[in-house]
Amino acid sequence: MKSNVRVKLLAFTPLPESVVAAAARLCYSASSAEDLIVMLHDDKEQRDKFIKNLARSGHLSPFEHVSFTFAVDGISRACSHQLVRHRIASYSQQSQRYVSMIDANYIVPDSIMENEKALMLFKDMMRQSHEAYKSLAEWGIPLEDARYVLPNAWETKIVVTMNARELHHFFSLRLCKRAQWEIRRLAKLMLIEVRKVAGGIFDVAGPACVTKGKCEEAKPCDKPYSSMEELLS
Amino acid sequence: MKSNVRVKLLAFTPLPESVVAAAARLCYSASSAEDLIVMLHDDKEQRDKFIKNLARSGHLSPFEHVSFTFAVDGISRACSHQLVRHRIASYSQQSQRYVSMIDANYIVPDSIMENEKALMLFKDMMRQSHEAYKSLAEWGIPLEDARYVLPNAWETKIVVTMNARELHHFFSLRLCKRAQWEIRRLAKLMLIEVRKVAGGIFDVAGPACVTKGKCEEAKPCDKPYSSMEELLS
Amino acid sequence: MKSNVRVKLLAFTPLPESVVAAAARLCYSASSAEDLIVMLHDDKEQRDKFIKNLARSGHLSPFEHVSFTFAVDGISRACSHQLVRHRIASYSQQSQRYVSMIDANYIVPDSIMENEKALMLFKDMMRQSHEAYKSLAEWGIPLEDARYVLPNAWETKIVVTMNARELHHFFSLRLCKRAQWEIRRLAKLMLIEVRKVAGGIFDVAGPACVTKGKCEEAKPCDKPYSSMEELLS
Amino acid sequence: MKSNVRVKLLAFTPLPESVVAAAARLCYSASSAEDLIVMLHDDKEQRDKFIKNLARSGHLSPFEHVSFTFAVDGISRACSHQLVRHRIASYSQQSQRYVSMIDANYIVPDSIMENEKALMLFKDMMRQSHEAYKSLAEWGIPLEDARYVLPNAWETKIVVTMNARELHHFFSLRLCKRAQWEIRRLAKLMLIEVRKVAGGIFDVAGPACVTKGKCEEAKPCDKPYSSMEELLS
Repeated sequence: MKSNVRVKLLAFTPLPESVVAAAARLCYSASSAEDLIVMLHDDKEQRDKFIKNLARSGHLSPFEHVSFTFAVDGISRACSHQLVRHRIASYSQQSQRYVSMIDANYIVPDSIMENEKALMLFKDMMRQSHEAYKSLAEWGIPLEDARYVLPNAWETKIVVTMNARELHHFFSLRLCKRAQWEIRRLAKLMLIEVRKVAGGIFDVAGPACVTKGKCEEAKPCDKPYSSMEELLS
Repeated sequence: MKSNVRVKLLAFTPLPESVVAAAARLCYSASSAEDLIVMLHDDKEQRDKFIKNLARSGHLSPFEHVSFTFAVDGISRACSHQLVRHRIASYSQQSQRYVSMIDANYIVPDSIMENEKALMLFKDMMRQSHEAYKSLAEWGIPLEDARYVLPNAWETKIVVTMNARELHHFFSLRLCKRAQWEIRRLAKLMLIEVRKVAGGIFDVAGPACVTKGKCEEAKPCDKPYSSMEELLS
Repeated sequence: MKSNVRVKLLAFTPLPESVVAAAARLCYSASSAEDLIVMLHDDKEQRDKFIKNLARSGHLSPFEHVSFTFAVDGISRACSHQLVRHRIASYSQQSQRYVSMIDANYIVPDSIMENEKALMLFKDMMRQSHEAYKSLAEWGIPLEDARYVLPNAWETKIVVTMNARELHHFFSLRLCKRAQWEIRRLAKLMLIEVRKVAGGIFDVAGPACVTKGKCEEAKPCDKPYSSMEELLS
Repeated sequence: MKSNVRVKLLAFTPLPESVVAAAARLCYSASSAEDLIVMLHDDKEQRDKFIKNLARSGHLSPFEHVSFTFAVDGISRACSHQLVRHRIASYSQQSQRYVSMIDANYIVPDSIMENEKALMLFKDMMRQSHEAYKSLAEWGIPLEDARYVLPNAWETKIVVTMNARELHHFFSLRLCKRAQWEIRRLAKLMLIEVRKVAGGIFDVAGPACVTKGKCEEAKPCDKPYSSMEELLS
């Protein structure tokens, strides 16, 4: 069965903009710990303006104090293999060693979806791989070995935590049109989620075409985003 | 003026035990992202038992999904220098380059506090260093250079974020009686704070004498803790 | 074609034991930078004894100053997915997005190798997956999408760099009999390689049964290693 | 006694450019581990051109495979406190807890050196702090507490290891004219050292004015570097 990426925000640091602002202000003022607690309830507008200035001036370390935890399913093992290469993050991934892959959930690339012949072959391979997996398991092969026949397309589930600084870095790389389509799709859903709860931090995010108005890639794509709206559409 | 460490919990991931448990369960089950959200409201007792088993079996990665942010003041620069050596953490520290050290706040070691002659000399040095700092600033020396005369004892303020896994590691090292007294004092206050909001995660924490019932140091101290209560008293 | 893991030591910090010892000595002495250079040519026996004491006393940070870079091939994508979860390390992996998988190289688990019926099915699936991959590519599907049909068993190549401290951590986890067989096999070859050039650092390494003489796992295996020799045999 | 920063390259990954190039090539080719070993002896000119392209195109991860270890002395505790904030690095620092500060070695900021009145006061404070330290030690105060009177200017010694990717990041931040003068001085000496042994990797390095021909700071300095030569002079 075709599967689609789903992203739920499982948890995040409350009042994220206020926490970032309070931490940043400590660096340049004589504020006490108590003052910082009070700052958490500062004027929203001023606070968000302050945060934007931090981001613009490259003073990014205060953004590390707030974290976002996503429950993700409907991504392929090909995608999760890329995802976990981001090292400043935490992961808990469904184990193919221990969890039996009873249902056939897999991801179909658009290029295959749109090509009837390719899609037929693809679906057939998914079915056969799954059949082989089940046969091997029945014959006493341990699940952790039977899974060697499962394809890259197979669905996995993962909980991911990143702080806001790393998320900005992640979005700058993975929302670029030159990034692989599946991780782009995931990154976009993650961005949509964090914008709901931390708009002041993620008001501007994504590849350089969006955040800096011009591409910084060695080999630019031919259609850079012209706006945040286009990126999110 | 003598200064004492103060620790305020500025922010933390809500429902920390539930988030850890949900992430850990994903690894060994076929739960969807939606299921994980529901799990956040699981039975407390069962959940905390599950978490304790995770910790005991060394399955620590799910503890990375929850973070705690502390506003700390009343620690010396000697202490903050040690603190920031913990690399899996985020810091925003008051800058001596930019913030004028108007007030004389400094930390006095107990060994000096308890020795009248030493204390008199110590206080005199603090006063003189501060006078020198102010004179240099008046004479046009930039603050960032004037501060070179300020002593290790000088107070600093810092916002620290660590995830629960790193906190456990931090507590295991820094609550050991062989750790330096000032960072031990800080670690103890941090532990007290997180136990208020995440008792299920920090029910047991600290050096091996407390968590494993026996010391693992090459050169053990002569009075290991016999219990969590003693550690916290 | 069945593939077997191969590990080559591509590069490493020269005189690794001497570098570790010099760095460690700086912590507890008034040595200058020049002195440290001289220390590089210290007496070997004394140096190795000193290093062993460091390791025993848990003073592990000096081991971070030396790194080892391995060229690895003949591992499955299942294995590389586990490997890259070690975050204090650097990786350059052959990209299935860009490199055409012309040859059918894959890893066969022993449990399948030893089961004739399973092996026949497994090989058949490998062949079919590869045929499907090639057909998709011929029909104009991008390589990065065609690879979605390739199985977990498919071979990948990777360059890995870890410092000696992280390697010790890696060996303690991945040489345990409860670790997955393929990454255990890889870890063993890596250990054999580093022992050739840094015997003083890796004289003792591996799971707790070997390094501490007793298991620390929550669920111990039934046949812990009784010696380093057994581990390496 | 006034002290000056000294930087010695204690160790580094041999053939650094070749290792970076071999790792990078693996990503986009079907090369085996054996092929990579052979690549280590590739044509120098072609290799360095390839590396430059990697850097330009922002494909920086292969630069992580090579590390550089520096023995540093003659820096202040103010400087080392900044240095150790770089978390993707390894440090072994002379401990003020254990090593007796017998000699009075300290760092004098230029702004103070050039102001006779300030210098006299500064030197007097250094002398007095040291006298106080020695008195406290004589009176039985532990060294780790006596050091609380020592100033930020006090000399420390440290061994630092960074990989080439992190070094580039470090140089981009710390060689900027807006960085603090002492860490800039250190960074410059480190750059000079690595250029001697890895010219192909550090041919271009430093702040954006040098590497990209234009400043990216929010508040630019008024005299950006016009060339690598100027930066190194």
